[in-house]
Amino acid sequence: VHSFRAAIESRDVDAAVALLHEDVVFRSPVVYTPYRGRFAVEPILKAVIQVFEDFEYTRELTSPPDHALVFRARVGDMHLEGCDFLHEDPDGRITEFTVMIRPLKGIQALAEAMRQRLS
Amino acid sequence: VHSFRAAIESRDVDAAVALLHEDVVFRSPVVYTPYRGRFAVEPILKAVIQVFEDFEYTRELTSPPDHALVFRARVGDMHLEGCDFLHEDPDGRITEFTVMIRPLKGIQALAEAMRQRLS
Repeated sequence: VHSFRAAIESRDVDAAVALLHEDVVFRSPVVYTPYRGRFAVEPILKAVIQVFEDFEYTRELTSPPDHALVFRARVGDMHLEGCDFLHEDPDGRITEFTVMIRPLKGIQALAEAMRQRLS
Repeated sequence: VHSFRAAIESRDVDAAVALLHEDVVFRSPVVYTPYRGRFAVEPILKAVIQVFEDFEYTRELTSPPDHALVFRARVGDMHLEGCDFLHEDPDGRITEFTVMIRPLKGIQALAEAMRQRLS
């Protein structure tokens, strides 16, 4: 189990954020333009952990320096699945963090819930 | 390079379809309900290979029996990235094939282009 997964599973967002390189590039499932920097990602992670219900990692692909953590979750009535892609530098810090989600209605439900929470 | 990737890169959809178990479960990036069976997936693959422009695999995670093939593509003006998740049985046949795409506008553009092509 990747340490990022372990941190999220124990709902320790601070521990998860600490694994990110300070200049991490975060690509969200919703918008094209990446977010840059650990401090840009922190509020997003803190919001998403509140928005996702019944969150559970289901599969983990380990292919260093890349890791893919497949999950399922629910936003209101919408069931969705997704994947956290982590790319690490030689020191094990996460320099790229990309999230993809399916299906379309699941992303739309997440985008709306995040908009309400972050506005 | 996974043989599915090699088949798609050479635009040989028949070779890609031949790697699927006849009872493959296909989860699309757009709709929640899975498609079942090789013959349900074939027309979708043939359409999507026409719809995606500048398609290119960029990363491959190998963690048997799971593989994740990360790609980028364009649908009209919309740049997107996505991932083909392949889960194999002990004989190497693909029993689960899941596709995720980001960002939201990229999935919407794909869904609209596929709707036009398949209708």
